[in-house]
Amino acid sequence: MNAGSRLSVAVQGEAGSFSHQAALEILGERLALIPQRSFDAVFDAVTDGAAEQGVVPIENSLTGSIHENYDRLSERGLNIVGETQLRVRHCLIGLPGVGIDEIQRVASHPVALAQCRRFFAQHPAVEAVAAYDTAGSVIEMLRAGKRSHAALASRLAATLHGGEVLLEGVEDDPQNFTRFLLMARESGPVERATKTSIVFTLDNVPGALFKALEVFARRGVDLSKIESRPLRGRPWEYAFYLDVLGNPHGAAGEALSELQRGAAELRVLGSYPEGLKKRPT
Amino acid sequence: MNAGSRLSVAVQGEAGSFSHQAALEILGERLALIPQRSFDAVFDAVTDGAAEQGVVPIENSLTGSIHENYDRLSERGLNIVGETQLRVRHCLIGLPGVGIDEIQRVASHPVALAQCRRFFAQHPAVEAVAAYDTAGSVIEMLRAGKRSHAALASRLAATLHGGEVLLEGVEDDPQNFTRFLLMARESGPVERATKTSIVFTLDNVPGALFKALEVFARRGVDLSKIESRPLRGRPWEYAFYLDVLGNPHGAAGEALSELQRGAAELRVLGSYPEGLKKRPT
Repeated sequence: MNAGSRLSVAVQGEAGSFSHQAALEILGERLALIPQRSFDAVFDAVTDGAAEQGVVPIENSLTGSIHENYDRLSERGLNIVGETQLRVRHCLIGLPGVGIDEIQRVASHPVALAQCRRFFAQHPAVEAVAAYDTAGSVIEMLRAGKRSHAALASRLAATLHGGEVLLEGVEDDPQNFTRFLLMARESGPVERATKTSIVFTLDNVPGALFKALEVFARRGVDLSKIESRPLRGRPWEYAFYLDVLGNPHGAAGEALSELQRGAAELRVLGSYPEGLKKRPT
Repeated sequence: MNAGSRLSVAVQGEAGSFSHQAALEILGERLALIPQRSFDAVFDAVTDGAAEQGVVPIENSLTGSIHENYDRLSERGLNIVGETQLRVRHCLIGLPGVGIDEIQRVASHPVALAQCRRFFAQHPAVEAVAAYDTAGSVIEMLRAGKRSHAALASRLAATLHGGEVLLEGVEDDPQNFTRFLLMARESGPVERATKTSIVFTLDNVPGALFKALEVFARRGVDLSKIESRPLRGRPWEYAFYLDVLGNPHGAAGEALSELQRGAAELRVLGSYPEGLKKRPT
């Protein structure tokens, strides 16, 4: 592999973040990571060309949709070109050679801390400290060099930065999956696509949503997700996000064309292969 | 009015919070407020009888659903017995007699601070300080007694606690409405109900959601809201929340009975009068 063939990919967080792991699952090793501080910065990096693609989380199986990223998908002109579902497995990571009983302080992203409540309940003397990123908290822990400090992050973060995994599977609930989207400026190849994500608005009349879904049901086209978000300036009206299964050259595409004619506004956010898992964890 | 005829109502936040204002809109003056520190505590207070009813926000027209309260509606056995939509109008409240140019520090709930970004952009020297409650930050400001301190809260909070409104309508977006639900242990009278909220799950088969909505569309029964939330332990499966318009003794009730037969699980969260506004702001 040479650097010239690598794809530059923006993610929120440092190397070893769950977004990085998701990017590796979709793209394999052929990527050059471009860490960003925020989701907005990821969208910016792809939009202005600083990165060729970007990866953001869109939904967690325990906590639900990451609604702010749904809003960004609608507001920004990027295309979804891939996705993956990642099993979120948190590791307690410390300096090499330390024991669990030495740990007094554990840093991580607030969501990761919230997903590991049982660990903190079982270790009441351990202080939970919020950080902007899971993998970033590993880097800071190593930089601080204190035996009493640890971080919650992926095994990948420990491997990449040289921390030691003291405990694996610290999360409360093993059914913890996050779905990530891969985004690019251009749309992906339609041939391999098995899923299409759209956002649309409807005229505010009775049965409008039912009629919209009818175009799919009549053709036996299945939907894997529906999400509603408020429309700014139009209180109690909504934009609907749908994930439609099937290749857009088939019945799914016909249904989308029919919906496009009936909807007030409709935008295809991208057609892409469903849940491609190159390297299951 | 005597105290004996008052209804005890739990809300998150202190007297003068937007939840308090919502409770006054639905119930009029005949309430005895029971302030709580959290939404969980509001549900607890109604469940264990410490309060007869409780008011919680469920949706904001700018930021969307308050998903944690949807989850609580599903998990707790309470009934929705009323609702109101409140125009959220933030006031800058200081000690009586101070000028805006004296203010150096403004406290409020983080959501209120986020809804007033323009004020802070226009007053870069003013520090925004997060507090657990809008009205509570007025109480703390008055207690501190410093001319440089102010809070963002409702006019009602200023009136009740003796602060002075220095600026009204500080929020960035005038289209800022929040919908609140009134909850009780017992269900409300069906006769006056014009809306029914339900939560249901479906078997994971193609077209299931379409078939569920079809029972309403076929009878011309309108839906005012659909929301999906993840099911714990069943990744990528969802509970759906619907608001169904019409009296449950009519076509809406027939549709609900049919859906009940077809759904995997269905629970009526409550039938109640829609958007009753006793005292519009």
